Amino acid sequence: MSILEMSNHNRPEQPVGVFDSGIGGLTVVRAIKDLLPKEDLFYLGDTARLPYGNKDRLTIERYSLEIAGLLAAEGAKLIVVACNTASALALPRLHEVFRIPIIGVIESGARAAVAQSQKRRIGIIGTRATIASGAYERAIQAIDPGIAVLSQPCPLLVPLIEEGMFDHSVTIEMLHHYLDPLIAERIDTLVLGCTHYPLLKKTISDMIGEDIVLVDSAENCAAQVLEVLRETRLENRAERPGNLEVALTDSSNPFFKTADRVLELNISRVQTRIVQGVTMAAI
Amino acid sequence: MSILEMSNHNRPEQPVGVFDSGIGGLTVVRAIKDLLPKEDLFYLGDTARLPYGNKDRLTIERYSLEIAGLLAAEGAKLIVVACNTASALALPRLHEVFRIPIIGVIESGARAAVAQSQKRRIGIIGTRATIASGAYERAIQAIDPGIAVLSQPCPLLVPLIEEGMFDHSVTIEMLHHYLDPLIAERIDTLVLGCTHYPLLKKTISDMIGEDIVLVDSAENCAAQVLEVLRETRLENRAERPGNLEVALTDSSNPFFKTADRVLELNISRVQTRIVQGVTMAAI
Repeated sequence: MSILEMSNHNRPEQPVGVFDSGIGGLTVVRAIKDLLPKEDLFYLGDTARLPYGNKDRLTIERYSLEIAGLLAAEGAKLIVVACNTASALALPRLHEVFRIPIIGVIESGARAAVAQSQKRRIGIIGTRATIASGAYERAIQAIDPGIAVLSQPCPLLVPLIEEGMFDHSVTIEMLHHYLDPLIAERIDTLVLGCTHYPLLKKTISDMIGEDIVLVDSAENCAAQVLEVLRETRLENRAERPGNLEVALTDSSNPFFKTADRVLELNISRVQTRIVQGVTMAAI
Repeated sequence: MSILEMSNHNRPEQPVGVFDSGIGGLTVVRAIKDLLPKEDLFYLGDTARLPYGNKDRLTIERYSLEIAGLLAAEGAKLIVVACNTASALALPRLHEVFRIPIIGVIESGARAAVAQSQKRRIGIIGTRATIASGAYERAIQAIDPGIAVLSQPCPLLVPLIEEGMFDHSVTIEMLHHYLDPLIAERIDTLVLGCTHYPLLKKTISDMIGEDIVLVDSAENCAAQVLEVLRETRLENRAERPGNLEVALTDSSNPFFKTADRVLELNISRVQTRIVQGVTMAAI
């Protein structure tokens, strides 16, 4: 049976596939497990090629197609793009190629931000590629064209988070550098537009104060997964908790243990999937 | 003619191929151009998959074979692995596969450090993968087993350099964090074990003072290229300055312009080479 045929015969007991460039998407896994504890989840982190956030659209599209293909081969009934960069740049191309429902994190984040914002001034932080794509602006202004969107690329936050430097003075200094201009613009809502950022939620929250609402795309994405599974009647109704399988394209990611611990996922085993590059046939 | 046959018929007018995970290896290009101004150079930066420094040996070997294969296809008469991580982890495998002479940056850096060190206490800074490989220790202690080698992984320096934050207070703070323990260990020589780090040479030099000698692997690697080209009679004796061609596997690298300017390479055109991933034939 080809993957295409399979995608027309999805069954509730198939897993939800989740992918990210690396480990950050586990924040989305945590949110899906909380909301949909019976679903089996297959998480694929493309750690061999991370980060996506400073690469170009063609590269991000190609990687996203390849990784989504691996998840389709695992029998995923629905694919979650738990990576803001891939959601911002590759979702249209993924929808062209795959019949399986595919959910990104931008649209749900944009909807939640619009629902929260009273003053209609929303700040977005993300990777360079996510911010440059303008995807959040478009998604927010498609709902309400009158909302002001202030965007800030934060290229150093992912490396700092991967080093586990959540409260380090250097992280605080960089956060001030990135967030102070947004605060000065009197935003009342701040979207954490990268799946790594929820790990800095407390530090960011302390810095921006209570008057600015934080929107975590992970939680909102999980709500959309629930919605789509109900609509398509693919919700798993098994009388047992769902499994979580994790595969990475590279075996060495020191950040993995930190994320597993902080998110309390208790991942016992990590598989490796090779994304094959050029063949060396000529040599 | 296959690549293998071609490698047996190298001619002086063929280019020297240079590769790195990204842009940092341009510091090696600068050093080669200074020492061997008549050589044509073909530089390939694997920006679509950078960084290599936090990935595993199998991934780094696979990427290095693929990129070296692309340089062989460009007719390279000699290949320079202008990346400490790839030199540390993939050089033995590259030598197994290719007949073309292949030069890494570790051995020349180690030799220069041993020659410089009076107190026989050498510090090494590099990426996580380079330091974990122990390649510098082995290379130094193969020359003189009595030398003490103190190693320090510096995972945040590459992102900071790529942001152009050469003198930023955050960079200074991280440098203190990484270098102070080495200074406390009374090293008299410090190897910049990553091709990005020469761009921080002045900042590091000011911090560690005049008593510690800095060893820049770029310069020493260029000297080894000269040596091998003479030995193999492949030196280009053309009466004109050599060309520099640059190709990257991803088009968007904001650090490229900074490096080009700082290194005064005046690169006019950047080509793109796609390193093909898995085929999507199943879909």
